[in-house]
Amino acid sequence: MVETLQQFASDNYAGICPEALRAMEDANRGSAQAYGDDPWTQRAAEAFRAAFQADCELFFVFNGTAANSLALASLCQSYESIIAADIAHVETDECGAPEFFSNGAKILVARTENGKLTPAAIRGFALGRTDIHFPRPRAVTITQPTETGQVYSLEEIRAIAAACRELGLKLHMDGARFANAVDSLGCTPAEMTWRAGVDVLSFGGTKNGMAVGEAVIFFDRGLAEGFDYRCKQAGQLASKMRFLSAPWAVMLETGAWLAHAAHANRSARHFAGQVAGLPGIEILFPVEANAVFLKMPAEVTAGLRARGWSFYTFIGDSARFMFAWDADRGRIDTLAADLRALAQDAAG
Amino acid sequence: MVETLQQFASDNYAGICPEALRAMEDANRGSAQAYGDDPWTQRAAEAFRAAFQADCELFFVFNGTAANSLALASLCQSYESIIAADIAHVETDECGAPEFFSNGAKILVARTENGKLTPAAIRGFALGRTDIHFPRPRAVTITQPTETGQVYSLEEIRAIAAACRELGLKLHMDGARFANAVDSLGCTPAEMTWRAGVDVLSFGGTKNGMAVGEAVIFFDRGLAEGFDYRCKQAGQLASKMRFLSAPWAVMLETGAWLAHAAHANRSARHFAGQVAGLPGIEILFPVEANAVFLKMPAEVTAGLRARGWSFYTFIGDSARFMFAWDADRGRIDTLAADLRALAQDAAG
Amino acid sequence: MVETLQQFASDNYAGICPEALRAMEDANRGSAQAYGDDPWTQRAAEAFRAAFQADCELFFVFNGTAANSLALASLCQSYESIIAADIAHVETDECGAPEFFSNGAKILVARTENGKLTPAAIRGFALGRTDIHFPRPRAVTITQPTETGQVYSLEEIRAIAAACRELGLKLHMDGARFANAVDSLGCTPAEMTWRAGVDVLSFGGTKNGMAVGEAVIFFDRGLAEGFDYRCKQAGQLASKMRFLSAPWAVMLETGAWLAHAAHANRSARHFAGQVAGLPGIEILFPVEANAVFLKMPAEVTAGLRARGWSFYTFIGDSARFMFAWDADRGRIDTLAADLRALAQDAAG
Amino acid sequence: MVETLQQFASDNYAGICPEALRAMEDANRGSAQAYGDDPWTQRAAEAFRAAFQADCELFFVFNGTAANSLALASLCQSYESIIAADIAHVETDECGAPEFFSNGAKILVARTENGKLTPAAIRGFALGRTDIHFPRPRAVTITQPTETGQVYSLEEIRAIAAACRELGLKLHMDGARFANAVDSLGCTPAEMTWRAGVDVLSFGGTKNGMAVGEAVIFFDRGLAEGFDYRCKQAGQLASKMRFLSAPWAVMLETGAWLAHAAHANRSARHFAGQVAGLPGIEILFPVEANAVFLKMPAEVTAGLRARGWSFYTFIGDSARFMFAWDADRGRIDTLAADLRALAQDAAG
Repeated sequence: MVETLQQFASDNYAGICPEALRAMEDANRGSAQAYGDDPWTQRAAEAFRAAFQADCELFFVFNGTAANSLALASLCQSYESIIAADIAHVETDECGAPEFFSNGAKILVARTENGKLTPAAIRGFALGRTDIHFPRPRAVTITQPTETGQVYSLEEIRAIAAACRELGLKLHMDGARFANAVDSLGCTPAEMTWRAGVDVLSFGGTKNGMAVGEAVIFFDRGLAEGFDYRCKQAGQLASKMRFLSAPWAVMLETGAWLAHAAHANRSARHFAGQVAGLPGIEILFPVEANAVFLKMPAEVTAGLRARGWSFYTFIGDSARFMFAWDADRGRIDTLAADLRALAQDAAG
Repeated sequence: MVETLQQFASDNYAGICPEALRAMEDANRGSAQAYGDDPWTQRAAEAFRAAFQADCELFFVFNGTAANSLALASLCQSYESIIAADIAHVETDECGAPEFFSNGAKILVARTENGKLTPAAIRGFALGRTDIHFPRPRAVTITQPTETGQVYSLEEIRAIAAACRELGLKLHMDGARFANAVDSLGCTPAEMTWRAGVDVLSFGGTKNGMAVGEAVIFFDRGLAEGFDYRCKQAGQLASKMRFLSAPWAVMLETGAWLAHAAHANRSARHFAGQVAGLPGIEILFPVEANAVFLKMPAEVTAGLRARGWSFYTFIGDSARFMFAWDADRGRIDTLAADLRALAQDAAG
Repeated sequence: MVETLQQFASDNYAGICPEALRAMEDANRGSAQAYGDDPWTQRAAEAFRAAFQADCELFFVFNGTAANSLALASLCQSYESIIAADIAHVETDECGAPEFFSNGAKILVARTENGKLTPAAIRGFALGRTDIHFPRPRAVTITQPTETGQVYSLEEIRAIAAACRELGLKLHMDGARFANAVDSLGCTPAEMTWRAGVDVLSFGGTKNGMAVGEAVIFFDRGLAEGFDYRCKQAGQLASKMRFLSAPWAVMLETGAWLAHAAHANRSARHFAGQVAGLPGIEILFPVEANAVFLKMPAEVTAGLRARGWSFYTFIGDSARFMFAWDADRGRIDTLAADLRALAQDAAG
Repeated sequence: MVETLQQFASDNYAGICPEALRAMEDANRGSAQAYGDDPWTQRAAEAFRAAFQADCELFFVFNGTAANSLALASLCQSYESIIAADIAHVETDECGAPEFFSNGAKILVARTENGKLTPAAIRGFALGRTDIHFPRPRAVTITQPTETGQVYSLEEIRAIAAACRELGLKLHMDGARFANAVDSLGCTPAEMTWRAGVDVLSFGGTKNGMAVGEAVIFFDRGLAEGFDYRCKQAGQLASKMRFLSAPWAVMLETGAWLAHAAHANRSARHFAGQVAGLPGIEILFPVEANAVFLKMPAEVTAGLRARGWSFYTFIGDSARFMFAWDADRGRIDTLAADLRALAQDAAG
């Protein structure tokens, strides 16, 4: 009944990718034990350990809000604080979830360029207020790729991790689009995480093509102590766990997780290439993942909407075009053509 | 890869029913807006309002822990309390989730027969401690059917609701197996809920045959104020909501929700009929829904396990056999035959 | 303006003892640094360490609710639980404070005689439910003396502590009337606490004769990590700390803390001796501290009230007479005489 | 034993004023009921209602952290937010207490001049983000006087209150130095609060000369519903309440509360007058209450410290001199003389 949207609004507007859906169908044969004591969940765990070349501890939760908030809550006490970038999703779009799950931990917001934290910013907070009237920093969270589509280089992550170790802070990575970052850097998951000094990762499955479910991965098993109880109490332990874990197993085993992200990234670059240099159109951030932010005249924005295109707009005349695992080349070209025509009209 | 378990352990060991799976597949055509602004979610909402003959407000969350805990948290302040039965799931199996979501509301536990609360027990708490050193009761929660498979009659629910109104308490119904109760009483959903005086209902989808997702239904829309934000902050707002709502839409529209519950209830009664009167075997509670609790000799329990049967055992020699939407008549008969043989051997 | 109550209702109805008041007056000379960086607080800390013969870490908070709740919150996570006696103050009279400060830790209530926990009861909880759906026990709290005035012997405390160590539980002592227990056992503070295996102690100052303020004492300094921030965030860090700490310093240095408790205990024993054997009057619990619980006919209770006596009554016809640091021998005798006369009339 | 500090660091370094101490001594005659059911607390409540010409509901808590945090928690849900100035104490110096007491409400920080919020800033937040991913504003808090000693005019407060009403927000006033503001404006307490549209006030007693204790005053009694339970659960209900309330009763009845604040304000103006125009010394903010902020050369700061003066310094070379109820004119003149000499030396 859903007529397909002409959408580039968000990668969570996309459906379930074929591999994930087939995995759910395969997992639907007969009965299985609940709460993760099933072969699919075991198989997914093994697939993660293989993909990360690490004996990591992992947990499946329902969505990104919970993945990030539970991970951060496990890293600090209510009277401690978390250093994040000014445009970090946990600060701007979680309705106070980190504060709720942690029972009051404060997010210390650093002004950034493109949402990237720096060792200097982290040091500034960690070495700034040290009196008892201010919640001491205990964790750092970085979004990879950032909310504007920038990707931290391995060097940047390592430098942040080094600063964290030096300052006694734990490092969390919000990987809602982790796969897109891995494709963008062409590195291994291990290189971008534990080998670079990341302690805990939220690995996004939904934007990667699944129906529901994210993974929280602890590279330091000691930090995972009690996290299973934490998930249960917070309403994040699925009874029919196999339907969250089976898609992970298959996507990791087949490489679909990375292939879909690569397609999304390519689609973004293709679109950026099509619209680069159009009169009055400005690409706001380097296109390093699957998002393209454009500054464009109001009438162009209106014109695209009038033609049925769906995308996000922000303060000013900026628009975000997000490319999902199912981004269609033909539709992208049509969008680009519409945009070109409207831009030229606007430029008169 | 999952070899089917010979299981009667829990209805959440079962898979996704055909109607729910097909709905997810149908909902997977193309893109749709996220967070519930999609046609499937709208359709599901309409199906609920039709099924309950009420202009109710509803929300989809991921699991029962969250459905019950968020509903209860919305009914009371942290310094208030919730009256529940001694075997209520919220008290015995949620790892403190109601206390966590409410930031400290206390559960007042009433001793009960078969897990059924009574107006007298509620009055006892509400009229007992009224000093400031004790959290004042503000809500009552009943499980329908109870954890031992008993079903409150409409008269019992009405009497409890009347006591609640008289005492200024809100009434919540934990309907993890709501459909089984509706089939058991042969009444309408409306009769068992708002017409009887229930304020908020947690309607279980998972045990009814879905992959994931429960519905929280407010019959008094005023009580739902802010609940959408509450869900978001608590990590219970699904981005690809259509995959939670589409199964509800189809199951409610087709009546599959009730048909599956009826099958499960019939299966339980059939099994109970088969094992009634076996030597040394005692049926512990009236079989009113889809569970059968048996007291049986330890060697019988061991014998069944040795033959590969999966079920829950509790303190003493009691065993719980739970029948799901996919309970197989042939397998039930085989289980009963095994049980008969073992019981007779044990009886020597 | 306050006409003195003829009260034996509670030791917190009493005023400030002379030593505490004088200490506040002495501490009121000139200015001092805030938040505990003052000579009085340092002096109090030294007095505590001397009294406990231990290099303990200590904190001053405003009242017993906070002392117990903060201590317990520091010992467990929100998804863990605390084992307590059925009549423990933290369970029955704190309006959910432990659940609030811990963000949802559950109190597991053990049925007891006279409010005394036993190693068996603790083992029952710790070795009972071990699945993820139930909050795992992490701490034990005992009230010394209990709410009915019983005093744990050193052997009893050591046995409980041994069970805690064996089970990986931390042991907290609610010492709202700690001084009364020390006098009752005639032991040293060290013997009753860290030498017996207590990890954290709430030492009550208010009932001991101060205006406001309790001490939380950690014998294992590792457990105190971050507790100063915890107090600050929870609104329990006094700015003019010297007025909380100076009374402690003086009372510990002069021995007034113990002398006042000894007087209160003697007063209770004296009263018990006066009323023992009166017709229809039953002393409900052994008088081991500063409380006397009497079961008496309703008309006797009414008669005492009619004569202006203030005391607590509970379910049934039981009455609690509590003796404070300022209990007056003459008034006790008058009370006893009234009680005798009323009892004899009632016995007719 | 405390040798008097040569301090102008904070008004909470000062001791207890004579009226407050005498009140505590007077209240110390005999016994009184606990938890506020005593004549002194009743008398204090009447004194507040007279002083505010309103039938307000009031509560006594232990300190300002609790007064502000409990008041704000009572005004919003965990998924809502509070608008505050960038230098508001609740944001900068409470170690996350508002987030803790509210279980996660977010503080939205407005950039300000001198810590003063404006209707425009409030509108900006209230009309900005309105999607479910951001906690909706529900309350506004203003500090009167601000942390830099500015005083909102009645017109400014009325304009803010009007904006709040228009936007459905509740208005809280952090009056840690409320008395200083009343003296500064020369208005009545009523004019500065409920008549101007303030819903809830935290009235500071400690900085006004008391040992401990602040008042939370609800001008809309409906907002106070359950606040007594909230205080109890949060560890803010004093058992020997009379020692918190008696000083309020006496200080309000005698006018000492205002006289002490007037003296502190005069002292600040006197000091400012003495140091105005000194070479290299700059008065950073208008002196409208009892604080004077100076920008001065590092060697002057060091010189003052070397001469034993105690004051706060902040980023840059700014120093805060705070004048308490007991500020001594002679000592101020000595300080000013030292400052003059050092400034002239520095200016060479």
